[in-house]
Amino acid sequence: MAVEIEKVPQTMRAAVLFGPQDIRVVEKPVPRPGPGEVLVKVAACAICGTDLKILAHPDFLHSPRLGEFTPGHEYSGTVVAVGETVDEFHIGDRVAVEAHKGCGRCENCVMGLYTACLNYGNVAKGHRTVGMTVDGGFAEYVINHVNTLYKIPDNISFAEATLVTTAGTPIYAIDQSGSLVAGETVAILGPGPIGLMAVQVCRAMGADTIFLTGTRPSRLELGKQMGADVTINVRESDPVEVVMDYTRGRGVDLVLECAGGPDSPDQAVRMAKRGGKVVFVAYYKGPVTLDLNVPVRNNVQMYTIRGEGRRACARALSMMSRGLIHAAPFITHRFPLEAIGEALRTFAEDRDRAIKVVVEP
Amino acid sequence: MAVEIEKVPQTMRAAVLFGPQDIRVVEKPVPRPGPGEVLVKVAACAICGTDLKILAHPDFLHSPRLGEFTPGHEYSGTVVAVGETVDEFHIGDRVAVEAHKGCGRCENCVMGLYTACLNYGNVAKGHRTVGMTVDGGFAEYVINHVNTLYKIPDNISFAEATLVTTAGTPIYAIDQSGSLVAGETVAILGPGPIGLMAVQVCRAMGADTIFLTGTRPSRLELGKQMGADVTINVRESDPVEVVMDYTRGRGVDLVLECAGGPDSPDQAVRMAKRGGKVVFVAYYKGPVTLDLNVPVRNNVQMYTIRGEGRRACARALSMMSRGLIHAAPFITHRFPLEAIGEALRTFAEDRDRAIKVVVEP
Amino acid sequence: MAVEIEKVPQTMRAAVLFGPQDIRVVEKPVPRPGPGEVLVKVAACAICGTDLKILAHPDFLHSPRLGEFTPGHEYSGTVVAVGETVDEFHIGDRVAVEAHKGCGRCENCVMGLYTACLNYGNVAKGHRTVGMTVDGGFAEYVINHVNTLYKIPDNISFAEATLVTTAGTPIYAIDQSGSLVAGETVAILGPGPIGLMAVQVCRAMGADTIFLTGTRPSRLELGKQMGADVTINVRESDPVEVVMDYTRGRGVDLVLECAGGPDSPDQAVRMAKRGGKVVFVAYYKGPVTLDLNVPVRNNVQMYTIRGEGRRACARALSMMSRGLIHAAPFITHRFPLEAIGEALRTFAEDRDRAIKVVVEP
Amino acid sequence: MAVEIEKVPQTMRAAVLFGPQDIRVVEKPVPRPGPGEVLVKVAACAICGTDLKILAHPDFLHSPRLGEFTPGHEYSGTVVAVGETVDEFHIGDRVAVEAHKGCGRCENCVMGLYTACLNYGNVAKGHRTVGMTVDGGFAEYVINHVNTLYKIPDNISFAEATLVTTAGTPIYAIDQSGSLVAGETVAILGPGPIGLMAVQVCRAMGADTIFLTGTRPSRLELGKQMGADVTINVRESDPVEVVMDYTRGRGVDLVLECAGGPDSPDQAVRMAKRGGKVVFVAYYKGPVTLDLNVPVRNNVQMYTIRGEGRRACARALSMMSRGLIHAAPFITHRFPLEAIGEALRTFAEDRDRAIKVVVEP
Repeated sequence: MAVEIEKVPQTMRAAVLFGPQDIRVVEKPVPRPGPGEVLVKVAACAICGTDLKILAHPDFLHSPRLGEFTPGHEYSGTVVAVGETVDEFHIGDRVAVEAHKGCGRCENCVMGLYTACLNYGNVAKGHRTVGMTVDGGFAEYVINHVNTLYKIPDNISFAEATLVTTAGTPIYAIDQSGSLVAGETVAILGPGPIGLMAVQVCRAMGADTIFLTGTRPSRLELGKQMGADVTINVRESDPVEVVMDYTRGRGVDLVLECAGGPDSPDQAVRMAKRGGKVVFVAYYKGPVTLDLNVPVRNNVQMYTIRGEGRRACARALSMMSRGLIHAAPFITHRFPLEAIGEALRTFAEDRDRAIKVVVEP
Repeated sequence: MAVEIEKVPQTMRAAVLFGPQDIRVVEKPVPRPGPGEVLVKVAACAICGTDLKILAHPDFLHSPRLGEFTPGHEYSGTVVAVGETVDEFHIGDRVAVEAHKGCGRCENCVMGLYTACLNYGNVAKGHRTVGMTVDGGFAEYVINHVNTLYKIPDNISFAEATLVTTAGTPIYAIDQSGSLVAGETVAILGPGPIGLMAVQVCRAMGADTIFLTGTRPSRLELGKQMGADVTINVRESDPVEVVMDYTRGRGVDLVLECAGGPDSPDQAVRMAKRGGKVVFVAYYKGPVTLDLNVPVRNNVQMYTIRGEGRRACARALSMMSRGLIHAAPFITHRFPLEAIGEALRTFAEDRDRAIKVVVEP
Repeated sequence: MAVEIEKVPQTMRAAVLFGPQDIRVVEKPVPRPGPGEVLVKVAACAICGTDLKILAHPDFLHSPRLGEFTPGHEYSGTVVAVGETVDEFHIGDRVAVEAHKGCGRCENCVMGLYTACLNYGNVAKGHRTVGMTVDGGFAEYVINHVNTLYKIPDNISFAEATLVTTAGTPIYAIDQSGSLVAGETVAILGPGPIGLMAVQVCRAMGADTIFLTGTRPSRLELGKQMGADVTINVRESDPVEVVMDYTRGRGVDLVLECAGGPDSPDQAVRMAKRGGKVVFVAYYKGPVTLDLNVPVRNNVQMYTIRGEGRRACARALSMMSRGLIHAAPFITHRFPLEAIGEALRTFAEDRDRAIKVVVEP
Repeated sequence: MAVEIEKVPQTMRAAVLFGPQDIRVVEKPVPRPGPGEVLVKVAACAICGTDLKILAHPDFLHSPRLGEFTPGHEYSGTVVAVGETVDEFHIGDRVAVEAHKGCGRCENCVMGLYTACLNYGNVAKGHRTVGMTVDGGFAEYVINHVNTLYKIPDNISFAEATLVTTAGTPIYAIDQSGSLVAGETVAILGPGPIGLMAVQVCRAMGADTIFLTGTRPSRLELGKQMGADVTINVRESDPVEVVMDYTRGRGVDLVLECAGGPDSPDQAVRMAKRGGKVVFVAYYKGPVTLDLNVPVRNNVQMYTIRGEGRRACARALSMMSRGLIHAAPFITHRFPLEAIGEALRTFAEDRDRAIKVVVEP
């Protein structure tokens, strides 16, 4: 039950998934926020690689609810109604979101590990991942629990604020690894949006030399502009060799594996210094193997994360607002909601060097 | 709304606070569990020092609700009804409780720091401390959120299970300090229930020499039986001197300050080894001072806790069930609910060497 | 230069490696302790799996010095001479050893990570691993730096004290993982000496259910006697299935991978709970692979160690002295130094259910 | 014994302490580096508050060696000779120093806590603090152990490199506290050199709002230029009130107490958020008291450090070299060695808004 509400229409336009590769913009009822929840009028919603997986394999979701479900989890907008007990946000607040809300009652959530919630997908018990287990942001309106909302500082646009998860993910990786970053050498594998943002984040936290690996020259060039000191095209050189040469055989303090390729985990553990750290930020398509003997002999610690936990998005917004990290260079394309199909194809097919494609309902 | 419910009466007997030192057993409606909540038929509820504070100064509470409020936060019992969405517990389950449930939505709760909830006392937003901000266990029935419940292993009695917070508190202290305890020397200041249980906990985690300080010879003797190697009567000897002599000037790895006296914090920081750790487990009656220069020069880290956080009660129950820590020696007195006044006086006045006084509704 | 010295002969009997599988007891000069060093008269030296590797492949060592080098790194004895500046130990002290002394000047040593010393094998710079990069304990006398020595409490025999590394290794693993163990469920893979001792260590630190996997029924039986709750013969059942059944699909908090087999790492990551921890304690014979996607999706952190770091041996001795862990059941065979060949074969061939074979010079 | 040596004279000019407030520049033999040591030709040596303490109370030192001892611990220079085993540095290397070298053999050093060495002042056992327990940098030449040296990147001047400890100290404080800083609010008490540098360091690590307190308007102004968002003159306003107003009652995530005044510790614990952190960076002149009840009730963790540990100076140099922190604005005065008396007075009396006074031998 909403306790404070603006004039909100009864229905809205929303993208709905009807089957594999079948997404359509339809008319849907505007949802109403429950206790602890807020209704957000979406201003911008970016497309993420996970959206493509959902589109291709809706059964990837816990409950695809074909014909009903609206994806989209990287969005921003304005609060237009607040549910019972909500005083953290008010009508008119500009907000960015993080995807995960833990159930708040499993042992992982109680201990602060909410992205690894043991009740993942169990909406009744309080878990939700917007745009995955509940409706998301490719719509005019969307419901969010207060735990998943962050106020957007005035100097950040709605479009920029859609990048808050992209930035929160490498920040969470660094937090999980216990690394201070300042003065440390870092290797970042994979110049996707998360890898590129990781470059910016590490730079903003005081890193020393940053290495970035990838295959697309344009992306590596962009990485350089964003702060990478050394870029390595893995099609041209062995990235482990380059890093080892450059560091005179020492290796780097921290590796952020954001590539998700079949070889990148093995490269990651081979690049780390003796006693160094690797965080596996990416997900993998199938079984991935690495020679475990390498990190074992070199005393390399290996961390994993799930998404953008430990309120890393709050850190991301602060860093954006202070001009320490920049979202604007990522936003290469914008489409209205009705053109979501075109938007998805632009992203999927990497058209015109697309990095982030933003839908604006 | 309860979804599963046993035959439960409409009203019950419950101790209610009417004013300072004025607690009476009256007839009250039996509450009904909401979503995520459980109704517990109380089997045993122990008296804690905080209960005496509440009795003496009801305005110590966020909202004393005189004439309505039932204290008691160290209890155990049997689940007799479960609210919506609850599948973690079932009717008939024997359960122990921890006092704190965080709101689940402030930044501290989201990060796992639920005993330091920023919405402390805000029931509407989801915070509750049973027996303090909501009704507690000096009654036939009480409501608990699932986050605050732990199943009691078969080999632990209800009375023993009331000690789970007493044990959870020093366990949380150790967890917060990052200490492994195994092979470490530990000084525990104050042989109250928490200090004595701390002796058992440290012993069960593999401590080396355990020092215990206090003033009452009977308590120190008990501490010895529970595993302390060296007991120090602070009326007879300077505890810092004794510890330093015994450790040949090194000091101890870890100090658990459970005394809460005016001098004990200063003793704590002086007893720790250079580079050692102190946890302030006790609360203090008024301003307490210590010479900060001592820990600063000796590079001693100082930790604080609030209650029994980080699911330490689950660890406590496991350790009890495996016979590693023992609650039975603490339970010196038992009273029926109608004699709660007598029970409180027995505890307050330390009659017959009372340690823990248990009320059995 | 020794500053305090007992009557020590000029020469001694020592086992010397002459080539693969060629170890002979010969006469050698007794070494003299330098600054910060001590001369130990060896009382007992246990055989470790690494000794077999050295025997089979002397080139496994940084510098095998065939015809000169004496292996043996798990020993105990009595101080008979101390070098300059040594006041930590005195003639007559009974001492146990840890194998690793870091150089003390590389960045890893300075930060406390001495078993991962970057100057491994560089004796000139101060690194040494007794019995590997410098002469070890299969001899009447051996040199140790004070950093590698621990006084043996009176109630521990020399033979028992040779197990201090065996115990220190799982303790270091637990320390590295940040696990408290108390109240946690633990799976230990591999009932070798380190795995069996890990059972005892976890039990002594307050673990809840301990699972132990292996192939030899006698070892699993021994593990049960030492404190394992559930033993799993991996030839008869799928250990991941058993653990998951027993924990109702949750998995364990901590996995200590002590098996070093080709499948055990993969089992380890599959047994850990979502958000759990794995420590790879064993070394592997060749490239070992695991499906990285499992720990990534389950947010499992993966730690590695090298040997018995962070002064874990001091913890081990304390725990032994207090009767929390027991070395005696491990010592199945004893031989005089002259029978070292027989001793090595007994261990290598697992004769008479050998666990630890001790040589007594 | 030096193994590589340039033309170095037999004697040198050096400032020597003859008694309280009696420092004279005299002729002294040039020392020779031992194993693991390097001879540095000093280019610049900054004056630190500790130097004034030493000058006023030479007995503050473990062994003042009046008539012989040369103070000065914040210096930089060029390697002119290297001792045995040294391959980390070569003749001609430009180097900055950190003051502390641990003994490398006490339990604290072995665990990486070298600034809290248990053999502090014991030169024979390997401990040394340059300019305090052994001769320092107010001289033409000085000996350093390789553990205390860091190569100076080309784009940092010798004078700037003397600030490496000033920067290393707050970096170590942050490291000890486990704080990520990025996106966090920080209060820094005291705009001395360390406090001002802390402002820069926190800014360079991605801090959100930075508060700085002090009494001198010029210093607060400087702090603002260096990155503080809010400066508070404690003579004009209550700093706790200002911070609480600004943060709407929340308090800050991290407090770095660099003031060392009688009230600043109490302010520090009152400014921290519930669940926040305080690091006591400063030393205190005498007993200092604070109301412990405040951090206890607010679950505030309190950390201490000693100097610039955990190789924080390496981080500092990296950050300087990348232009993330700036030393130049600190260097207000320069004097030749012969004018050291004048230099000390300039610093002590705060002449001409002196911040850092550098002596150039």
